[in-house]
Order: sequence, then C-alpha cells, then structure tokens
Amino acid sequence: MSETPDSAVHAVRTYIEQHRETFLGDLAEWLRIPSVSAQPERAGDVRRSAEWLAAHLTGTGFPTVEVWETPGAPAVFAEWPSEDPDAPTVLVYGHHDVQPAAREDGWRTEPFEPTVIDGRMYARGAADDKGQVFFHTLGVRAHLAATGRTTPAVRLKLLIEGEEESGSPHFRALVEEHAGRLAADAVIVSDTGMWSETTPTVCTGMRGVADCEITFHGPDQDIHSGSFGGAVPNPATVAGRVVAALHDAHERVAIPGFYDGVTELTEAERALVAELPFDEAAWLRTAKSHGTLGEAGFSTLERVWARPTAEVNGIGGGYQGPGGKTIVPASAQLKLSFRLVAGQDPATIERAVRDWLAGLVPAGIRYEITFGAPTRPCLTPLGHPALTALAGAMSRAFDGATVRYTREGGSGPAADLQDVLGAPVLFLGISVPSDGWHAPDEKIELDLLMKGVETTAYLWGDLPAALHDAQR
Amino acid sequence: MSETPDSAVHAVRTYIEQHRETFLGDLAEWLRIPSVSAQPERAGDVRRSAEWLAAHLTGTGFPTVEVWETPGAPAVFAEWPSEDPDAPTVLVYGHHDVQPAAREDGWRTEPFEPTVIDGRMYARGAADDKGQVFFHTLGVRAHLAATGRTTPAVRLKLLIEGEEESGSPHFRALVEEHAGRLAADAVIVSDTGMWSETTPTVCTGMRGVADCEITFHGPDQDIHSGSFGGAVPNPATVAGRVVAALHDAHERVAIPGFYDGVTELTEAERALVAELPFDEAAWLRTAKSHGTLGEAGFSTLERVWARPTAEVNGIGGGYQGPGGKTIVPASAQLKLSFRLVAGQDPATIERAVRDWLAGLVPAGIRYEITFGAPTRPCLTPLGHPALTALAGAMSRAFDGATVRYTREGGSGPAADLQDVLGAPVLFLGISVPSDGWHAPDEKIELDLLMKGVETTAYLWGDLPAALHDAQR
Repeated sequence: MSETPDSAVHAVRTYIEQHRETFLGDLAEWLRIPSVSAQPERAGDVRRSAEWLAAHLTGTGFPTVEVWETPGAPAVFAEWPSEDPDAPTVLVYGHHDVQPAAREDGWRTEPFEPTVIDGRMYARGAADDKGQVFFHTLGVRAHLAATGRTTPAVRLKLLIEGEEESGSPHFRALVEEHAGRLAADAVIVSDTGMWSETTPTVCTGMRGVADCEITFHGPDQDIHSGSFGGAVPNPATVAGRVVAALHDAHERVAIPGFYDGVTELTEAERALVAELPFDEAAWLRTAKSHGTLGEAGFSTLERVWARPTAEVNGIGGGYQGPGGKTIVPASAQLKLSFRLVAGQDPATIERAVRDWLAGLVPAGIRYEITFGAPTRPCLTPLGHPALTALAGAMSRAFDGATVRYTREGGSGPAADLQDVLGAPVLFLGISVPSDGWHAPDEKIELDLLMKGVETTAYLWGDLPAALHDAQR
Repeated sequence: MSETPDSAVHAVRTYIEQHRETFLGDLAEWLRIPSVSAQPERAGDVRRSAEWLAAHLTGTGFPTVEVWETPGAPAVFAEWPSEDPDAPTVLVYGHHDVQPAAREDGWRTEPFEPTVIDGRMYARGAADDKGQVFFHTLGVRAHLAATGRTTPAVRLKLLIEGEEESGSPHFRALVEEHAGRLAADAVIVSDTGMWSETTPTVCTGMRGVADCEITFHGPDQDIHSGSFGGAVPNPATVAGRVVAALHDAHERVAIPGFYDGVTELTEAERALVAELPFDEAAWLRTAKSHGTLGEAGFSTLERVWARPTAEVNGIGGGYQGPGGKTIVPASAQLKLSFRLVAGQDPATIERAVRDWLAGLVPAGIRYEITFGAPTRPCLTPLGHPALTALAGAMSRAFDGATVRYTREGGSGPAADLQDVLGAPVLFLGISVPSDGWHAPDEKIELDLLMKGVETTAYLWGDLPAALHDAQR
C-alpha cells in the first residue's frame, strides 16, 4: 500500500472537522424522507429520496448526476471523471431505500425525525444505508481538499439503488442495461458493517437471500371449531407443520437439495474466524437474544457468516385479537427467507422449496407460493491488492489499528455487480452491530461515520497504485 | 308421551301466526345490540343486552325477572311459577352474548343490523344464541294461550348468561351461588342445532372445551435475519414446531395423557351415528371446506361429535404486512383450543398441555401460557323419559316427522348445570349447520325458529307426566 504522510492525514481531518456540522445537517434532511420501498404508499417518498440525493450529489461536484428509472423505484447514478488519463474506475454501491418503521414498533424517537443523542444519530436508514452512502459525499471532497486536486484520483461512479430492502427486484436488469456506463475496475459496496467500535474490519463476503410468501387456504371462511374441528384440515396447522419441517433435529435445513453445491469453509478460514475477539455474551446482547441455536457443528460466527439458513420472518392466521375465538381459520400465511452462501444458486433453491412444499400440504388445503427477486451470495478473494489497500486506508483512519477480515450475514446485490461488470467487489462499512438494522432505534455512531469519510478520502488516493499492482 | 289433540296444535299455530311479526321485530331489536363478551370495549353492550332481555321477559309475563351480576358480564334470571302444586321445575339455559363480528370479515350485511332475506334473518347471534333463547318467550305464551292456562304447566325458570362466547368463566360460580333458586327437575339447553331443515333431531351431548393462549418471546425486539438469522432461536419457528407437535401421523393428538379416561363410543352408538343420512359432500359444503382430515379410524361425524381434538384458532408473529421484512421476530402467539369428550377432565388436560409444552421450548425462548375457563363435556343418557317427551313435542311441531338423536361438537356450560343441580340436561335446538355460527353471515331460518316456539309450547304441557314417569 502507498504511504499517506501525516500532513495528508492532518489535511483530511481538518477538512472533515470544518464540514462535519453541515454534513450531518444534510444527512438528517435526507433521513426525514421515509423512503420505504416495501410499502406501495411510500413510492412517492422513495422517488423524493432519489431526487434529493441527485441534487445533493450535483452540489457535491459530480459533473454527471442522473436519476435512473426502473419498473419499480428509481436509482441514482453519478460520475466524476479524473484528470489522470490512467486513473482506474471505481463504482460505489449503496441504496437510498429503507426498511419499514413506525414509532409504535418500539422506537424511542420518531423513526423519520433524526435525533442526535450522545454522539449517535437515531433514524430509520441512519446506518442501513443512507449514512453509509452519505460518507462518500464528504469523503471525495476531503480527498480533493487534502490533495489539492480538482478531480479525484480515480474515475468515481456512484450507483445508489432504491429497492434494496425489497430484494432489488430490478437491480440486475438495471446493471445489465447500463453495463457500459457502470464499467469499473473495482466495486466498493458500502452497505455492511465492521466488527465493533474498537476493532475495524473489512468484510469479504455477504450471504445471498431468497424469500417467499406462502398462503394456505382451508375453509372458504372461518368456521366453528366445535361444529367442524377435528374433521377438516386447518390451514394454520398446516402452516405450523411447514415451519416445523424446515429444519431437522440438528437445526440443519431439511429441504432436500438445500445444501447442494455449498462452498464449505476451509480449515484456514475457520481459523481466521476463530481468531476474532468474539464474546458470545456480548453478541447475544447485540442480538437482543437470550440463547444461541443453529446448525450443529458450527460456531455462532460461522452460522451467521458462512452457513445457509431458513428463517420464519412472519406467520399469521386465524384470530389474533384479544380473548379467544373458537374457529378453524380460513387461511394462514408464512413469510420465509433463506440466506444463501457461495455455491448456492437461488433458482435451484426456489425449485427445491417448491418441490418440498408440494409434499407437505394435505388434500383440502390450497396454497400459493410467490418468491421475491433473490439476491446472490458474494465472496471476495482474500489477498486481492485492492482489499489490502482498503484495509490500509481504514487502518489510517483508525489511527493505525490492525484491520481484520470478516464476512457479513446480510445480503446485498453485490454479486450482480461482480457478475455483470466482472470487477472485484470490496466492502467498506463502518456500521457496528448495535446499530439496529431493520429494528427499532436504528442509529449510526457519528464518530465512526466520520471514519468512513476519512477512509474514502485516503482510499481514492491509494487505489490507483493498488489496482495497477493487481493488473501486473 | 302424552297426546296433544289436533285442536291444541291448531291453537298453538294460530297463536304463533298472530304474533310472529311482533316477535321477529323484537328479536331484531335485541340482535342490534352488539353484545360481544370477548371484547372489553363491548362490556356496556353486553350489559345493555341483559337489560333489554330482562325488560322483554317482564313484558312476556314472567313475575320474577332479575339481572344477576358476575365478576364479568351479567346474566338474566326469570321465573314463572305454576299454579299446579305438583308441577315439575324446568330450567332453560341460553346465552345473550355473541361472537365478535365485523363487516370486513366477509359479511354481506352489517352483522349488527338484522336483515331478512328469503325467510332467513342474518345477524351475529341470530342462531347462536339469541334466536334460540328468544323462541322460549313466544313458546310459553303459546302454551298458555292454547291450553287456556294462566300459568305454565311447569315451574319455568330461565338462566341466560352473558359470557358463553368467552368460555363462561364465572358461570359455574354463579350457578353454585344461586343453586337453591336454580334447582330444577330438568334442564333444557337451547344452544345447539339439529341435523337439517328436513331431519329434526335432538342432541344428546356436547363436547367440552379448554383453550389457551401461548406467547413465545425470543429477541427483545425484531432483529435482522441476515445479521443474526441461523444463530438464535426464532419464536415464530418455535410456535410452528409446537403446532406440528400437536398431532401424530394418524392425526391423533400427541400430547401425552390427552386421551386418558376418554369414554369410547359403543358399537351401538357407532351404529346409531352410521344410520343418519350423512352426505359428506353436503357436509363439506356446509363446512365451506375442501377435504376431510381427522383422527384415523373414525368417521367424520364421530370425529366432530365424540372425539377430542386440538385445534389452532390463531397464530401470529413477525411481519404480516405487504412485501417482506427480513427479521427474526421478537415474539409469536398461538391460540389453541381442545375439544373434550365425556371422561376427560379439563384440569387434567391443562396439566398435560403445560407439561408437554415445557418440553418443546428451547433455551433462549421465554413463554407464557394462559388458559381460559374450561367448559366440561356433557352427555344425556339415551332413553330418559324427558328426552322422549322432548322428541315427541318436536315431532309434533314437525308434522309427525321421526326425530333422531345426534350429538353436538360445540361446547356449552351444560355440564356445570348437570353437576351442580343434579338434573338431567336436554338439548332443544332448531339451528341448522348452514347457520354459520362464529362465521360471517350467521343467520336463522325463520320457519325453523317458529318450530322452536311450537316445540316448547307442546313440551311444557307434556313434561309433567314424563318427569313423573322418570321419578317412579
């Protein structure tokens, strides 16, 4: 990796300090837009979020800023060419849509009214992913200010999509449509996290995800469980049996063919995972959970980073109000998701789930199953020079701390970028496990957010040499 | 049984015809009161329903009418002594509370705005149970008018409770408190149905019911299924596994001890059931179901009348809105009910369920289970003279049709009356399977309702001799 003189660090930090307040004010403005892609009634807000970001990127200095339409929510594309003829091209990926959120889910503050408490900004999307998109805007300005350049040392492209929290159903098509303009030598995904506030890490892979919704139909309406109970199939019972059939007694997914092709962890990779300072009690507190349970033969970190899963995200059927109602319900619903790892193909998994389900549903119960757009798993090879450059820039931002390697249990459309663009994918995230992604009280640590800004300010200077090395 | 001369039939029918319109108007007025005992916000309506009924019974001529308080919803008691010193005492049981109902559940008409279409009155409670309570009011007047009596031939008592649809939690204590005033030689329960519009039947028993609500708690809040999925226990998965563990592969309830003490059907009883003109396809249409499923080795009728069951009335957990949300949910709920048959003790069943559940819940999941007040099963011995008298009165109302014997899969607090008062329990119901108890579009057939009126008009004249026979 190249050296960044202390004076450069000083220049970057000074610039960031001078612009921190305005930067946070702008981020808060963006976070006020409830860009929930899963809720059709929020479609206008998702569009407003894209337009807001586009205007902000123009203000940042990107000469090219475009809102790209999809059959669903719009994405934002921006490009800032370099004056250096040999400059490599870097594509930054993030998303501007967010998970659903409502105060009554247990938020201490309004989810769409950003609130700073004790150095943390609380808001839906603060960490996932608006905050982590946003550090790139100040980062490139700090890079220019500290180096005295008028254009970045890399040809910088941004692609910020609007449907990530809905499974990125149109993302691959969008990337394919614009593959020429998106062409890059490396992809930087800023939609993951790092180990902890004190242990900076670079993520090397994400799990994929396939999700489905199943509706079971029994009687044409709720019927009396006294008059008919015990003699007709109950769709809520069937839903429960399907849930129970997801796993075997060793908590392995019991769907035939589910593990076919899985890239198993090597002993060296398992050793790297085991080296991390993992405190299971602390992890459980972050998970707000009261016990571990998972596939036999694997550690907790291996289970969430490198093993595929089947999870019940939602179940519902029959009477759920106060008191009782002695009915056989007319229908029941299941929302399931399957995390996938390298070597698993979403289309194969979908077929396996459909076949397995067909064998579980008794006569007299009709069902429908629909799959969302899947997200493929993604893994970056350890030792890639660009990955080393990223770890170096991050180390500098963290005052020389050792940067370790992790994986991410969550999912993003990084694999589509890798597939279509043929570029290595690097993960730069400064969110920490306590940030509460998809949960009430989502937040971002403001000091870490500024470390993200700082890392990119160094990285754009370091990447040209690293990528040049990679091509030799 | 005693003879009712044709002139008496004529007199009863003439009286009923003359009063039918007023009677139906009054019933509609009562049905407009949404006396849903399961919904705390309807408590005032349940009270209003009791007060309305009390006023109506006074108007009918009952010299004693009282609203009896309970720790929950009030009951109504009424008494009409006989001028005959040897008159036996009959206690009529019914209930004035109803199941929850909302137009959006699939009703074609407003559930609390009674609507007559094609000779049927549609309203929540039309059949279960206000309509069937109400036929006793015109019935006793027709009895008096046809016989020229000024008091009934039996000492007639009514006890109409207000918590039947909530499991009658205070009913047994109420009966025990007032056991002296409720003392009777026979109990007539009007809260069941008959075979069909064309096959009048008398029910000889009801199943009991025990119900419980279980809440499973996992993470303290919904957590990200990517970051944590596959490594912590999921309460919705546990709920599904508990549902799946309810039954074995033969659809027998798999809770250890569940069948202990069950009174099995005799071969003679099975033969009587098999004699009924049962059309399974028609029954399925009534059940609005598309297949049968139940305990191996038993027919559909045996399953709903004489076999205990475990049913899922409701299940819920995690995200149930539109689209997806990749979470491990914080909690999940189950509402289960168990139908019980003669020989099963609700307290034993509750212990069996608690013990079974404790063995199913993994570490890291906390749970609560609460049981509602159970209802015991009830069975009337075939051949009791009062039962024969009831069948005779019903036959006369149905123009001489043969009256057959059935059981009822539903539940009512009849067993408490039998236990506390030591009186035989007879079931007089004119509701038919298509009446939609606990379902949208509940209705009562108006012609059958008038047959109920007519049956009681004959029965009060016939019962003294029958009960006298029984005591010899």
